[in-house]
Amino acid sequence: MFELVPGLAAKDFVVDMKLCRVLFENNHLYPWIFLVPRREKVKNMTFLTMEERLQLMREIALCEEVICELFKPAQTNVAMIGNKTPQLHVHIIARFEGDPDWPGTVWDGHKETYDPEAAKALISDIKRAIMIKMADGRFCQH
Amino acid sequence: MFELVPGLAAKDFVVDMKLCRVLFENNHLYPWIFLVPRREKVKNMTFLTMEERLQLMREIALCEEVICELFKPAQTNVAMIGNKTPQLHVHIIARFEGDPDWPGTVWDGHKETYDPEAAKALISDIKRAIMIKMADGRFCQH
Repeated sequence: MFELVPGLAAKDFVVDMKLCRVLFENNHLYPWIFLVPRREKVKNMTFLTMEERLQLMREIALCEEVICELFKPAQTNVAMIGNKTPQLHVHIIARFEGDPDWPGTVWDGHKETYDPEAAKALISDIKRAIMIKMADGRFCQH
Repeated sequence: MFELVPGLAAKDFVVDMKLCRVLFENNHLYPWIFLVPRREKVKNMTFLTMEERLQLMREIALCEEVICELFKPAQTNVAMIGNKTPQLHVHIIARFEGDPDWPGTVWDGHKETYDPEAAKALISDIKRAIMIKMADGRFCQH
């Protein structure tokens, strides 16, 4: 049975895609989401089948485009680390020149939580943009 | 024309795959390679076509398996950052419990260069393992 480890279960839910659950990082400094494959006991990508890895890429591609369209970042950071949280989760983070950790990485970086209403509105915007793009044939399996 | 930016051109060459050039990070503390798509003006994955992104995933999958088989790490870190080096490059890094930066990330972390002969032997081992796995049908386009 698919279950989120505690570190991920604490994040806000955005939407479920075909393979991944999308979660939201409550850090006002960075538009930041996670993709977590809804599979049991997956520590990193080598625990997925090749078809699951290709589907993961389709969902990363879709979400990276959503983040770029909504936030117009200077760069996206897309990363699978999992040293502290050994359940595969893909960080997709919008980075801006001059943001508080620029040009360094944001893990163990600065953090400020959102106003609760602002977080709710942003999660809703991200969810809507993902669902619209899910209708785009480019991200479907052929 | 595909060209490496200076920060990547300084790395050691391992092998060319169908899409990516594989490079070697000369840091004795971590088995660490890079995959760089051999395409012009690609800052992040949104600059690739969907088919190129799927091929990138096949090549990441192949190289992540090679790194796991050769080094038996506790975890792999797979990341695209590119804040300082805005040419798409995928880090694939073997991490071990108790390594000098564990459980933190290795960017801006500890570094020790290899003995030149040891680096040459290791690059040769990685190249051989990648070429053997390239014959595995799982990593080919269907």
